[in-house]
Amino acid sequence: MPHINLKQGLPGIRGPMVFSPETTKPLCDLAEVLLTGPHTLTTAEREMIATYVSSQNDCYFCQYAHGSIVAQHLGGTPAQYEFVDAMKRDFESTTLSDKMKALLNIAGKVQQDGKQVTTADVDRARSAGATDKEIHDTVLIAAAFCMFNRYVDGLATWQPRDPEIYREIGQQTAKLGYVGRDYTKSFEPANKAV
Amino acid sequence: MPHINLKQGLPGIRGPMVFSPETTKPLCDLAEVLLTGPHTLTTAEREMIATYVSSQNDCYFCQYAHGSIVAQHLGGTPAQYEFVDAMKRDFESTTLSDKMKALLNIAGKVQQDGKQVTTADVDRARSAGATDKEIHDTVLIAAAFCMFNRYVDGLATWQPRDPEIYREIGQQTAKLGYVGRDYTKSFEPANKAV
Repeated sequence: MPHINLKQGLPGIRGPMVFSPETTKPLCDLAEVLLTGPHTLTTAEREMIATYVSSQNDCYFCQYAHGSIVAQHLGGTPAQYEFVDAMKRDFESTTLSDKMKALLNIAGKVQQDGKQVTTADVDRARSAGATDKEIHDTVLIAAAFCMFNRYVDGLATWQPRDPEIYREIGQQTAKLGYVGRDYTKSFEPANKAV
Repeated sequence: MPHINLKQGLPGIRGPMVFSPETTKPLCDLAEVLLTGPHTLTTAEREMIATYVSSQNDCYFCQYAHGSIVAQHLGGTPAQYEFVDAMKRDFESTTLSDKMKALLNIAGKVQQDGKQVTTADVDRARSAGATDKEIHDTVLIAAAFCMFNRYVDGLATWQPRDPEIYREIGQQTAKLGYVGRDYTKSFEPANKAV
């Protein structure tokens, strides 16, 4: 049961988004500018930072919604969904680039506390080719998901376990982004068994 | 030294704000809608939530900037600055209303992890008269400052210790809000002693 009266059937952040349209606008604008559009990091790479931080914060909805967006951007096969799980478990032992590993390392420090990021962490990213803009955006994406995760969990939102729901969210958001998508659809099962 | 090349003399979040105007727009819009304008919680009360969470995250810039905004909204006297310090240390033993204490308790749970917020925490707020909107906004303000604090600390921004700088920031923001204020002024001392 959510802590406040949210419309039923809207998973994760979508309940509070519909509850509070005035705050939803800047939140969607922020996600859109951070995670979509032209950038030297691909959309999949930026969504990977969001997914990793959400898994470190143990936010079920965000890590599976954004993990699905990553997988969909990569092609949407079962192997790509498995890659996302492996990245969350131990990104250092994946086939990701040295730059992405260094940026995920920074994101993990920001998740704990911004003051944990050291000059050595930043030097590692820079040696692997990361620019100031990429380091800035990594810190802000990680920080933003410390917000989104707490917003979703702090209101005790409905976070269904059905993978098909996350597949659909991933497909829709990968295609339409954060400002253009429809977030008002009810995913409540007809038999109310969930 | 900041981790990336930020313009000198801009304290705290102002360096990254000038570095990245495209993300600054939604961040300022979010702060404006959460913390300013008509609401059943006063601006001082909402800024108090921001200040308390920033102190729990040990973010020097944010806790003194927003603490100064609280004090300025209350009148700007030394006693009001002292009240903000007392609120950060132990809000339960201040003269704040039962509702504000219950909301600060929720904010403190969100700062740790959204999942820490219990039904009992929410019942306490509701018994003290808090509405769904007030509980929602408390959770989102607390979550948002977990972002702002990590953004400021994660880039190792310049966080000066001179109280006069925070007094000026408090006066300006209390008067103009987040969208209308000038955040490009250099506070760098002429003698570079800081």
